Amino acid sequence: MALEIERKFLVTGEGWRNAPAERLSQGYLCHEPSRTVRVRIAGEQAFLTIKGITQGATRQEFEYPIPVADAQSLLALCGAGVIDKYRHRYVHAGKTWEVDAFLGDNQGLVVAEIELANEDEVFDKPDWLGEEVTHDARYYNANLSTQPFVHWNKAALAE
Amino acid sequence: MALEIERKFLVTGEGWRNAPAERLSQGYLCHEPSRTVRVRIAGEQAFLTIKGITQGATRQEFEYPIPVADAQSLLALCGAGVIDKYRHRYVHAGKTWEVDAFLGDNQGLVVAEIELANEDEVFDKPDWLGEEVTHDARYYNANLSTQPFVHWNKAALAE
Repeated sequence: MALEIERKFLVTGEGWRNAPAERLSQGYLCHEPSRTVRVRIAGEQAFLTIKGITQGATRQEFEYPIPVADAQSLLALCGAGVIDKYRHRYVHAGKTWEVDAFLGDNQGLVVAEIELANEDEVFDKPDWLGEEVTHDARYYNANLSTQPFVHWNKAALAE
Repeated sequence: MALEIERKFLVTGEGWRNAPAERLSQGYLCHEPSRTVRVRIAGEQAFLTIKGITQGATRQEFEYPIPVADAQSLLALCGAGVIDKYRHRYVHAGKTWEVDAFLGDNQGLVVAEIELANEDEVFDKPDWLGEEVTHDARYYNANLSTQPFVHWNKAALAE
């Protein structure tokens, strides 16, 4: 078990686009407020990941490698929409930012995440980084699978 | 992934009581009609098990060993009651019956399961075997965790 401390931001610029990327496909066997069970295929690897409740920016996380063939069958068992995205890894000031450019029903949405050693860790922001959305549940991947970006009220977002 | 073909019966006699047993503790991260995600501690081992929808007596099953310490944390994440039982393994006519004698809120309930190679496989019944309940959802362990035996209407059952 690991404790995951992450902060999540919207993305305004394009400077991350040339960073190396891999395709991720993921779905949720379970997404409740208190826990999620995620199936993810990342290239030639696959994982089952259980996350507990979020307290501040910290979350319990348990991750286990599984065969890709199992993951394909498990994605078919996932109830809501499967999420597809390219994850770019952009190194800035000694920290790696994961920039997720979504496809499918979440096309157009780009978010950047940074993992921290503790909640108070200071970090430098790349110039393409926008507003922080760490605590905005709409951007949780579990919620994007059932309430994808394409159906959001963009006029309300811009206000 | 495996396909699990099981039949489940109530137990009327006592002939299984001296068969070797192990203590099982299990909870559910997810129990929906279409899939369950189970955490189980069996002595010194622990497993994460995902089961798909039941069709006839057949069910998709995916099982992964996990560290016992992880399983203890995951059981704490499980929403509904954790199930405790002794599982006895009773060999009869070349087949192994798993006889689950429940504890806690399911104390008093005993069910026996047999795993088959195919749905039409013929097997001999021990003399302590009672009524078949393969298709009775009340006896699913996922349902026993939220609707335990102690709260059942026993008068209605006896009718």
